[in-house]
Amino acid sequence: MSKPAPLYNRLALIGVGLIGSSIARAAKAQGAVGSIVATARSEATRKRVAELGLADQVVETAAAAVEGADLVIVCTPVGVCGAVAKEIAPHLAPGATVSDVGSVKGSIVRDMGPHIPQGVHFVPAHPVAGTEYSGPDAGFAELFVNRWCILTPPPGQNQAAVDKLAAFWKLIGANVETMAPDHHDLVLAVTSHLPHLIAYTIVGTADELETVTRSEVLKFSAGGFRDFTRIAASDPTMWRDIFVTNKDAVLEMLGRFNEDIALLTKAIRNGDGDTLFEHFTRTRAIRKGIVQIGQDSPAPDFGRGHQTLPPEPLPKPYASDE
Amino acid sequence: MSKPAPLYNRLALIGVGLIGSSIARAAKAQGAVGSIVATARSEATRKRVAELGLADQVVETAAAAVEGADLVIVCTPVGVCGAVAKEIAPHLAPGATVSDVGSVKGSIVRDMGPHIPQGVHFVPAHPVAGTEYSGPDAGFAELFVNRWCILTPPPGQNQAAVDKLAAFWKLIGANVETMAPDHHDLVLAVTSHLPHLIAYTIVGTADELETVTRSEVLKFSAGGFRDFTRIAASDPTMWRDIFVTNKDAVLEMLGRFNEDIALLTKAIRNGDGDTLFEHFTRTRAIRKGIVQIGQDSPAPDFGRGHQTLPPEPLPKPYASDE
Repeated sequence: MSKPAPLYNRLALIGVGLIGSSIARAAKAQGAVGSIVATARSEATRKRVAELGLADQVVETAAAAVEGADLVIVCTPVGVCGAVAKEIAPHLAPGATVSDVGSVKGSIVRDMGPHIPQGVHFVPAHPVAGTEYSGPDAGFAELFVNRWCILTPPPGQNQAAVDKLAAFWKLIGANVETMAPDHHDLVLAVTSHLPHLIAYTIVGTADELETVTRSEVLKFSAGGFRDFTRIAASDPTMWRDIFVTNKDAVLEMLGRFNEDIALLTKAIRNGDGDTLFEHFTRTRAIRKGIVQIGQDSPAPDFGRGHQTLPPEPLPKPYASDE
Repeated sequence: MSKPAPLYNRLALIGVGLIGSSIARAAKAQGAVGSIVATARSEATRKRVAELGLADQVVETAAAAVEGADLVIVCTPVGVCGAVAKEIAPHLAPGATVSDVGSVKGSIVRDMGPHIPQGVHFVPAHPVAGTEYSGPDAGFAELFVNRWCILTPPPGQNQAAVDKLAAFWKLIGANVETMAPDHHDLVLAVTSHLPHLIAYTIVGTADELETVTRSEVLKFSAGGFRDFTRIAASDPTMWRDIFVTNKDAVLEMLGRFNEDIALLTKAIRNGDGDTLFEHFTRTRAIRKGIVQIGQDSPAPDFGRGHQTLPPEPLPKPYASDE
């Protein structure tokens, strides 16, 4: 079977953290681009990107990175995407496509859009994938396989440019869907932003109790709490920017959540077991749906490993030499 | 190396779901007991327990199960433990130890304690371990390895009986800690009950939106939401009973959580990125602590598997035969 020709000749990655470095690895593995040029704000990251061989070329500025690139993907936190767009604008090649990977799309369209020159395509994107780790070492080529990448092209964008970016994401394993930016922000507010806010909250709550020690919280976390701590270990800069830029949708979803938790709180206070049972039964169906469409593993406990049973005999008086 | 003699001659399991069947498997694997007799309320479960060979004997009633047993572990939902204790009381062997595995301990001491006859030891226990699956097929022998089992013996219990039950849990892999029942209920309210309540709530919230479809919630769940659905797929009967019986501690923790989420909500409303950043940085440390003491895996994304990149070339116009 012959290998496809690269979709783009030269990919410029601006920011090489978990997502940027995963794109680099996947694009290379799939032969999706002819060459990769990368840049990052910090010298340490640029050095590490070079050491890891993630790009054919590592340059010091975003302006230099985009020279001659036909695909530019901004992989910085959402809060600085506007400034990056402004910086790269004069250096973009005619006919190039500019995209991003931000978790918020309304603000990206507002902040980056006005800087994109005539003759350059602008196709914001959001791959809904990640782990709790950050930085160029954390990425891997399979991160996007069977995850969804949402494209939110502003009205009037060149359809061929949109289709080509969709083909790029498909080639590195993702499913692609197109959405209006505001709808994206509402969907992600409930499937991603609200869960993160709640996880960050409860982990903070647990850490500030006077009646339960931190050591107890850690030791007995397998009762459920530890699941929240993974999410609450995500990159603070990225998540600060998300909540600041997707304020309205997050506050809307928070309002709904607060109403619902008030109802369940009332049921607990009243000892209303029927309401609790009915609610807890309904939520099981959602889990089944997610596993069925391959968005999570059916393995118990996320497939977490278990150590084997200890082979040592017990100390006396419980051990025996018989 | 010689195998230790069994700690108990005859273990009676009343209720054989995820926890009961895991105890059966682990006790057998470790030679912790001479024989196992099991019972379950439903005929279907009793039949399945026999098919799986989880017990040496399967009987129809709890009263019959405890005859001649020197260790009785009640593995039913918390809400029926009192009734079970009342049923088995006249049939308990002198010198036997009665225990349980309930996630709430204050109500267990109150509901079971008065029924335990003189000359029988009462040592309530809570292994902090589980998965989102239920029933005798869901259990496995390694479930308790390196998890904590909390004993909450009422004052004045025979220390040798407490130590022996601790040895049993250690033999099947658990770490053991002793606590007062009320303190247990407070600790678990934050490390287990509140996380479950919040997960049940947000999964319900997401399912009732008019603006975001269920299909969208499922597809884009990898942004964080799917982590919550696992917990919200836990057994509804078990969790109804937990919230009804640990009302005070859960309401106390809910109050703290609500205060904290109000503070973060205000920071979002005001665009106060510094407060958000500071909070999100603090919570990372908790995750590190949990991984360090071996209560969760350091693998990204809980070690969830990723499919490999798709080998198929793309359709024209993106494919090439060169």
